[in-house]
Amino acid sequence: MQAFQDRLGRNIAFLLRVRLYGREDVRGKLCDAVAGAGAVLAELELEEIEETSKDLVYLLTVFTTGDDQLAAARDAINQIDGAAVMETVDVAMESHRGGSCEMTAPPIESNTDLRIVYTPGVARVCKAIEANPDLARDYTAIGNTVAIVTNGTAILGLGDIGCVPGMPVMEGKSAIFRNFAGISAIPILVDTKDPERFIETVVTIASTFGAIQVEDVAAPACFRITRELDERLNIPVMHDDQHGTATIVLAGVKSACKQLGRDLARMTCAISGAGASGTAISELLQQAGIADVILVDSKGIVHRDRDDLNPEKRALAERTNKDNRTGGLAEAMQGADLFVGCSKPDLVSQEMVRSMNADPIVFPLANPVSEISRDDALDAGAKIYADGRYMNNAIAYPGIFRGALDTGATCITRAMMLAAADALADIVPDGELLPEMMDPDTHAAVAEAVAAAVEE
Amino acid sequence: MQAFQDRLGRNIAFLLRVRLYGREDVRGKLCDAVAGAGAVLAELELEEIEETSKDLVYLLTVFTTGDDQLAAARDAINQIDGAAVMETVDVAMESHRGGSCEMTAPPIESNTDLRIVYTPGVARVCKAIEANPDLARDYTAIGNTVAIVTNGTAILGLGDIGCVPGMPVMEGKSAIFRNFAGISAIPILVDTKDPERFIETVVTIASTFGAIQVEDVAAPACFRITRELDERLNIPVMHDDQHGTATIVLAGVKSACKQLGRDLARMTCAISGAGASGTAISELLQQAGIADVILVDSKGIVHRDRDDLNPEKRALAERTNKDNRTGGLAEAMQGADLFVGCSKPDLVSQEMVRSMNADPIVFPLANPVSEISRDDALDAGAKIYADGRYMNNAIAYPGIFRGALDTGATCITRAMMLAAADALADIVPDGELLPEMMDPDTHAAVAEAVAAAVEE
Repeated sequence: MQAFQDRLGRNIAFLLRVRLYGREDVRGKLCDAVAGAGAVLAELELEEIEETSKDLVYLLTVFTTGDDQLAAARDAINQIDGAAVMETVDVAMESHRGGSCEMTAPPIESNTDLRIVYTPGVARVCKAIEANPDLARDYTAIGNTVAIVTNGTAILGLGDIGCVPGMPVMEGKSAIFRNFAGISAIPILVDTKDPERFIETVVTIASTFGAIQVEDVAAPACFRITRELDERLNIPVMHDDQHGTATIVLAGVKSACKQLGRDLARMTCAISGAGASGTAISELLQQAGIADVILVDSKGIVHRDRDDLNPEKRALAERTNKDNRTGGLAEAMQGADLFVGCSKPDLVSQEMVRSMNADPIVFPLANPVSEISRDDALDAGAKIYADGRYMNNAIAYPGIFRGALDTGATCITRAMMLAAADALADIVPDGELLPEMMDPDTHAAVAEAVAAAVEE
Repeated sequence: MQAFQDRLGRNIAFLLRVRLYGREDVRGKLCDAVAGAGAVLAELELEEIEETSKDLVYLLTVFTTGDDQLAAARDAINQIDGAAVMETVDVAMESHRGGSCEMTAPPIESNTDLRIVYTPGVARVCKAIEANPDLARDYTAIGNTVAIVTNGTAILGLGDIGCVPGMPVMEGKSAIFRNFAGISAIPILVDTKDPERFIETVVTIASTFGAIQVEDVAAPACFRITRELDERLNIPVMHDDQHGTATIVLAGVKSACKQLGRDLARMTCAISGAGASGTAISELLQQAGIADVILVDSKGIVHRDRDDLNPEKRALAERTNKDNRTGGLAEAMQGADLFVGCSKPDLVSQEMVRSMNADPIVFPLANPVSEISRDDALDAGAKIYADGRYMNNAIAYPGIFRGALDTGATCITRAMMLAAADALADIVPDGELLPEMMDPDTHAAVAEAVAAAVEE
């Protein structure tokens, strides 16, 4: 994955169709033009040689920081004598045209097929389920279906952009569920900021699904929503930003401990950000036996003498920060062995990294720009570094749901998350912190470990 | 389609795997055994000849009225000297194993794919939609997605069996949408009998979808639900049992009028059943210009002097039954040119058919057993007969939604339903009342007519 991370943030792909007017000697200038604009030329492919004019038509795949760099590259190409950009395609936009997931069904090729999939054949299936509700697991899609529910209040790093603008993210998640775990995942936009209404809506439609993924709902509403849904429904409910991220971080920490020969029980972790992820990471690290966790929110270290804490943070203050330390992020990081960032870009200075214990582990997960860059962190003495692009929770949640659905689990427990983290840490290739997301074995290992934890 | 309608109701298919012990001379007895049990042998296929024993293994596809007839057929086969049933497969149940529809997505084959379908590429799509909400139509699946919403209170002819037992029907509908109209249709079980809660739930999740199909919700709740959803949402809302059935009936009536050289404007229709279908059929026939409609509910003819009518029926009493006739179904059918049944099996006698005007049209649509059998109706003088299996609303609704989605319609109007009915009547093959459902042209014709009506 490292290969795709450009430190200058040139990750927006465009396809340029460029015509060279009967001249072959300007190809080098094409490459120079793209480079001159600051963009990366990823691919250059001859599409055709026109028969009469002998013009050459090339397809250029160009990675840019965005529209400005694209415009600069286009201008530079158009200024070459004998070259012109004929067409520009926004690769991400085009890939999402028509959406990224859809409901499909086996072909109905005859009236006989129809009379089985629908009436009268289907009535027999309905009656069988009515007589024995457990059969719904085998004779409907419910048992393999996950609802991805969002209210659009915390879409990626984009914030509260609303449900419909958040839909491409939900569709992307659905594609990940399908590809990595064979799960039918249905985006459901729950268009309300009222947690009560959100909960009631999801409860009312929950019998459609085998599990619920709460997705990109802002804190603190996400806590109440996840907790109440979990209490009221007899199917697994997971909040990706809490449970998925915590599982991945724990797996990464376990791998790092192995590499460095460290003992988690003797480590202290500073966490920047006490939202959904920070809270869940704190809890899972403690469950896994870490010595102490110091959480920092926008007002400073979460400690027992603060009188501005909401109920979630008050509870955290009781369970973390054993010495009741006060101060800000700098104070929290002093003497810590591990830093996890779930907050904002560039909050961490090199000085702060230098104040940590020897050979610290630094996981600044803020997206799209992390709390401290790799170069700055390593330069300040960080021994192991991983950012939010590397610590992708899509390595964890498809397998967690697969394991939960396969065993008919009724909730996602800490034991299941711990088992998933262990399974991930067990199969990490040398020199990595997490196994490869594109490898089906990764998700199979998680599913198996989670299923075993459920059976236990 | 006629070919698949067995008058004795033998439409439940089983697959029997039968072994003949080294003897080839009992095949005739096999056929006799199935026939003797009253079942229909649809297919006999040699699966294998075992090498050492020379036993023959046959697969028999048998259509039965249900489990009793199946047991009789199995017993009869087992009583044949040298034959034994090794396995029995319930074809409908097996076909529904794992469900009949699922969410799918294009393959994610590399980290590059992933970075386009999900973060960071997807963020670009989200931001574009945030800036211009109309883009959601092009860059998400929303514009091609229909929600199939039910509370399980009127599933097929099975009644109030509940949401989850009704799921196979919703999945079957989804398969029909996919196959006949290329629409991604998502079953949503809305588990409440409170119309208010049903409406609020659907409104809250409606931005996920391009249209709503209200499915198998009992009257009178279905009226309020459909009406309020239609008023509150700016996407099309259709209640299949109302709009779909009415469209099909009108198409059938138009075809029948053509065949018989009749003028709709001079015809009177008696309708048995004043629920969702009866009411909608009444309204569409009037919209199309029929002379009069007489509706009959369980208490008799709906007329203006009754004091036991709910608001829907009171409104109907004002718009139908011009002469304010009283009495029961027998009185309603007297002198009618057309009968439409949306009620219960065997309510119509031959005497009632004989009391209609000359050469009457009889559409008894009750499922699975109609108000009067074909033989009885024709014997009593019915000129044209069609029951609920023939008048399948799946001929209409896929194309209606296709046309509505393609044009971005915000509701389903009577004009759209009239256009759909006209389009269907226009392409009916000789001797039929409706075009063939398996023919893609049927659905394309409906979609085109509906789209044209929207543009108008």
